[in-house]
Amino acid sequence: MSHNTFGHLFRVTTWGESHGAALGCVVDGCPPGVRFSLADIQGDLDRRRPGQSRFVTQRREPDQVKVLSGFVFDEDGETMITTGTPVSMLIENVDQRSKDYGEIARQYRPGHADYTYDVKYGLRDHRGGGRSSARETAARVAAGALARKVVPGLVVRGALVSMGVKGIDRANWDWDFIGHEDNPFFTPDPASVPVFSAYLDEIRKAGSSVGAIVEIVAEGVPAGLGAPLYGKLDQDIAGNLMSINAVKGVEIGNGFEAARITGEENADEMRMGDDGRPVFLSNKAGGVLGGISTGEPVVARFAVKPTSSILTPRLSIDKDGAEVEVRTKGRHDPCVGIRAVPVGEAMVACAIADHYLRHRGQVGE
Amino acid sequence: MSHNTFGHLFRVTTWGESHGAALGCVVDGCPPGVRFSLADIQGDLDRRRPGQSRFVTQRREPDQVKVLSGFVFDEDGETMITTGTPVSMLIENVDQRSKDYGEIARQYRPGHADYTYDVKYGLRDHRGGGRSSARETAARVAAGALARKVVPGLVVRGALVSMGVKGIDRANWDWDFIGHEDNPFFTPDPASVPVFSAYLDEIRKAGSSVGAIVEIVAEGVPAGLGAPLYGKLDQDIAGNLMSINAVKGVEIGNGFEAARITGEENADEMRMGDDGRPVFLSNKAGGVLGGISTGEPVVARFAVKPTSSILTPRLSIDKDGAEVEVRTKGRHDPCVGIRAVPVGEAMVACAIADHYLRHRGQVGE
Amino acid sequence: MSHNTFGHLFRVTTWGESHGAALGCVVDGCPPGVRFSLADIQGDLDRRRPGQSRFVTQRREPDQVKVLSGFVFDEDGETMITTGTPVSMLIENVDQRSKDYGEIARQYRPGHADYTYDVKYGLRDHRGGGRSSARETAARVAAGALARKVVPGLVVRGALVSMGVKGIDRANWDWDFIGHEDNPFFTPDPASVPVFSAYLDEIRKAGSSVGAIVEIVAEGVPAGLGAPLYGKLDQDIAGNLMSINAVKGVEIGNGFEAARITGEENADEMRMGDDGRPVFLSNKAGGVLGGISTGEPVVARFAVKPTSSILTPRLSIDKDGAEVEVRTKGRHDPCVGIRAVPVGEAMVACAIADHYLRHRGQVGE
Amino acid sequence: MSHNTFGHLFRVTTWGESHGAALGCVVDGCPPGVRFSLADIQGDLDRRRPGQSRFVTQRREPDQVKVLSGFVFDEDGETMITTGTPVSMLIENVDQRSKDYGEIARQYRPGHADYTYDVKYGLRDHRGGGRSSARETAARVAAGALARKVVPGLVVRGALVSMGVKGIDRANWDWDFIGHEDNPFFTPDPASVPVFSAYLDEIRKAGSSVGAIVEIVAEGVPAGLGAPLYGKLDQDIAGNLMSINAVKGVEIGNGFEAARITGEENADEMRMGDDGRPVFLSNKAGGVLGGISTGEPVVARFAVKPTSSILTPRLSIDKDGAEVEVRTKGRHDPCVGIRAVPVGEAMVACAIADHYLRHRGQVGE
Repeated sequence: MSHNTFGHLFRVTTWGESHGAALGCVVDGCPPGVRFSLADIQGDLDRRRPGQSRFVTQRREPDQVKVLSGFVFDEDGETMITTGTPVSMLIENVDQRSKDYGEIARQYRPGHADYTYDVKYGLRDHRGGGRSSARETAARVAAGALARKVVPGLVVRGALVSMGVKGIDRANWDWDFIGHEDNPFFTPDPASVPVFSAYLDEIRKAGSSVGAIVEIVAEGVPAGLGAPLYGKLDQDIAGNLMSINAVKGVEIGNGFEAARITGEENADEMRMGDDGRPVFLSNKAGGVLGGISTGEPVVARFAVKPTSSILTPRLSIDKDGAEVEVRTKGRHDPCVGIRAVPVGEAMVACAIADHYLRHRGQVGE
Repeated sequence: MSHNTFGHLFRVTTWGESHGAALGCVVDGCPPGVRFSLADIQGDLDRRRPGQSRFVTQRREPDQVKVLSGFVFDEDGETMITTGTPVSMLIENVDQRSKDYGEIARQYRPGHADYTYDVKYGLRDHRGGGRSSARETAARVAAGALARKVVPGLVVRGALVSMGVKGIDRANWDWDFIGHEDNPFFTPDPASVPVFSAYLDEIRKAGSSVGAIVEIVAEGVPAGLGAPLYGKLDQDIAGNLMSINAVKGVEIGNGFEAARITGEENADEMRMGDDGRPVFLSNKAGGVLGGISTGEPVVARFAVKPTSSILTPRLSIDKDGAEVEVRTKGRHDPCVGIRAVPVGEAMVACAIADHYLRHRGQVGE
Repeated sequence: MSHNTFGHLFRVTTWGESHGAALGCVVDGCPPGVRFSLADIQGDLDRRRPGQSRFVTQRREPDQVKVLSGFVFDEDGETMITTGTPVSMLIENVDQRSKDYGEIARQYRPGHADYTYDVKYGLRDHRGGGRSSARETAARVAAGALARKVVPGLVVRGALVSMGVKGIDRANWDWDFIGHEDNPFFTPDPASVPVFSAYLDEIRKAGSSVGAIVEIVAEGVPAGLGAPLYGKLDQDIAGNLMSINAVKGVEIGNGFEAARITGEENADEMRMGDDGRPVFLSNKAGGVLGGISTGEPVVARFAVKPTSSILTPRLSIDKDGAEVEVRTKGRHDPCVGIRAVPVGEAMVACAIADHYLRHRGQVGE
Repeated sequence: MSHNTFGHLFRVTTWGESHGAALGCVVDGCPPGVRFSLADIQGDLDRRRPGQSRFVTQRREPDQVKVLSGFVFDEDGETMITTGTPVSMLIENVDQRSKDYGEIARQYRPGHADYTYDVKYGLRDHRGGGRSSARETAARVAAGALARKVVPGLVVRGALVSMGVKGIDRANWDWDFIGHEDNPFFTPDPASVPVFSAYLDEIRKAGSSVGAIVEIVAEGVPAGLGAPLYGKLDQDIAGNLMSINAVKGVEIGNGFEAARITGEENADEMRMGDDGRPVFLSNKAGGVLGGISTGEPVVARFAVKPTSSILTPRLSIDKDGAEVEVRTKGRHDPCVGIRAVPVGEAMVACAIADHYLRHRGQVGE
């Protein structure tokens, strides 16, 4: 994992800025013979797309993906089959609303990467945040759509489990509700929708923003994936999730809760199932022991900070060292954690696909 | 980062099992001209060494390190100077107490990697946990001791901030107390020692174990380190920490707290300092914005689960699929989080050293 | 170096097939602040472009490059400045002449990768050779154009030094002649043009093809580049050149000649120059000793086999195992070695740029 | 491949200098369940060991290998079985003959890496050549012994095919003769022994040295190995061989000869064999087409330059820039190409083992 590439055998390289001509990714190392359709990729992109409710940025982007290489069409002329060569995917930037970037180009938004990009590189593409824009995550989602196809039986789903000080009731968890048209939050708890709506309207109207916690669950992960000690499955999932802009914490299974309990409370006991296969009586480990998958669902959560692009004025400096007050106008997500759900799914799917191939490489099937 | 190697330019490969002949590491890519002494390495190893109080495993290991390559002696015959070639370090296993591994060889301890190593590889070195033993961390600490020397002015320190349900009072934080001879816990709060002592004695006598949270603070990290988007400094720190056995969660700066607050609460405002350099008025970001260091202290915390090697019997199965009750006798840490403190420091130091070189490679000094 | 990516700090990922929508590359890790223009990239691509004489394939491709990311325009609106983020470059495929691929889709051309791609992946994109087409090298040339800008003072030039049984007279070597409009061969020897012309006309009319040897000379390579023992500068140059389709041999400096002579004949003696810097009295080493650059010109040669796409019928089999005779009609280069010259330059430039950054990372400037 | 590590899934990291305490390697990613014995490793090391005839250096090293990790003993207590964790192997340096390194420490031997190591790193371990010593190749051979076991049915053999101006008669090729006790040259041609003996005695007595060409043939390589376009099997073989100190050229199959002939001469025609499998009527490609193995024997040759450690005085400079004459006394190989034979075998075996695992990872078995 280096610079703008992640993964070892299922390798994803992303490129592109918020307001350049396009952005995209190259997926290298995908097995041959994987069947997919443009609709598979587009479907995931549409879930991440802005402009779908008042709770996300109003930037209008069709996010139409083009697949430029690495496949042949099946005889139906629609199903695409990977050939084992790199799959290049591209999404054009359409809504590059012309505006005066004068201040933003020179001022550092507190809590944003403006300052650090400038310190590191000596210059930056300030238009729309450049490479640090949430828009970059479209490329991750496209790659993830392919990753999902690599591991037979793999299902990766995500949910928003808290927003600011408001949380869900896990007793109400309903995966099917997440894609429901009346659910703009990716929440699995129908009862939380009015709560989150009221809360976020308030935040939004105040010109503020708020953080969130997202949970990803991967089912159908074969036991045995992970390359200890420095390529652990949970380590790579943690790294992948932490690479998403605005993520400040990651946990696997019961995570930080494990630090508070005893060994006998934390251990997932085992029995033999009726089918002669081992059964875990609980899954506090989140499907990973010693860095290797147990066959139980892999569970990861990550914390997304509130965006620092807010209307409320904050103290800062500009490129010349002058002290300024910064207010960020424009179209922004009051809770970037919402659209992080499909992004988190994609990053977990990519980690699992990579480890599936790595395990097969070292150990065979 | 792959298998048993981590880092890109400052690369560490570790090898060895708990009860084999030896364990060690190879540090590749270390800059030439780095001056160190055996005492530097040994000092860090001694901090991690078992057998120093009743609160850690009673296994007696001198953990004497040998440096086999990659240096020349300075004229004093004592100071070692790296030559830019690989530094190989080796620690012999001395206390390989002979015992009957009959049951352990066949039974899977719940919550331990026994089952997953067997599922992945088809066989495992069961003696003392083999590669998944905490003993492996000695190699990380040795590498970290060298990493600390790579970045001029870098100081990386760690502290235990909670143990099970007991925490410290941050108002009492005293870095100097951590190395104090009356402090067997790496706690920065003198008042916590009797609390932790009583609590852990109880846990230990009950044949149980407990988790902990460790905080690492790196000062002297130059602004500009980090390679967005998939080699972010915080991402690599998170991955490095998550690669330590028993770690289940990682956070940077205010971490999961960021998910609960608003954008204006979370943003670290900036002013110009008297010396004409930017000053952050707070450090909720933990020294990293957009994956790049800000120049503020880098702060990371990680959750260590309680060891699953406990006396309390737990339900499990064995290699043949028979249902068994497992009790783990032998010398074990009631709170592995304690000795994880110098290990966490080492892993953070290695991540920073690596990014220091990577930044210098891409951008120059 | 893995799959479709090469380089460590200056990393190039290429993608695309001969007859897909487009092909391109992503250059990751390029230092910020590198100034270039579209004309720089296009100029190198134009040198590689087919259709420029009767001695190369008549496929007509404008090979117009688009730079999609990783730069900002300077105030002149023309000069591009890298930002340190990935530079994505794309070249559309225009001349995808519609034809019946029936036979080629099923038959294996002897000496071509048809069979091995099918054996490896179970399917292949047969149109125009798919990924194994010479067309893929356009992406290498685009990346190389950027690489040339990374190392101050670097000049990388190439020349065709032999074609089949015909060679040049090194006494006539004239670098300036290589770009001359009357020189369709990249030969540095004006006297060789009529010889090569007559020879290749004969080959071409016979429906045959012929191999060639290309020499690359890089001047301005600072002493000290190379990462022994397994990232030697000459090793990475050799690997880069061998990765070009149809290359079967590589040598550095006097290469295979070194195997025939004695130690005293082979050693490049040293003296001190008038400027107080070391001077080598010869350069049999080709600018590399122990895998590290000496400061002398880096010299590499590679052997390009004759294309196996020829009119002469050859025995082969098809996908179903039937024995067939294969004749390859269509537009092909009678001597692919000619257009390999700018490709070889690009691959050497990329290796040097990568090592320049790697050296700076480990050792500083 | 970076610094001192090569391979992607079968990864080898070597460390150690000529006159340090020890040298060794860590083999990471080896599949579990590979059965080997100490004798397998030692046998290969013994073939490379110095001091076995008057034609190689008289340094006396037992080269006794220790395997420190990554295996369990089978029930016989002798057979070792890999566990999938890193295999660390160590060879102590015994014959560190004490001597005055005064001049060598300061003078640069022409044609040697003395100068470039100093230029790159600012200092070097001059004792016996440090890391650039031929002694480092022992670690490669140990790793290669394990690599041979990874691919079922793989047989990798090497032969010296020319020494200076003297070559073998391929009509006499006898693999069995290579290990014969009367064959100090790894030549496959019995008739060449007296020729090489007389020639090398002359060279040796003159205080000179001479180059050589080595050929490696790998049989039992499954079709389909190789990862185009930048991880080609032949590219990685070329890189691996070029990483051996003193190697200046590499070719695959007919290599540079391919540059001299026509397409119809060069193409290996195909027929169907009696067993219903494809048969190649020739193997000019050396078992690789488009970077992917064909199933035919993989054939590589490499040119080894004459060592620059010779008695004949050569002009050079020293660290202070003074002009000097250098004569290298001490124990040196008059033809380092001889002992390069088992080293070349090892490097080819490692490349094939790595690609075997990589192919299995991407495509399955």
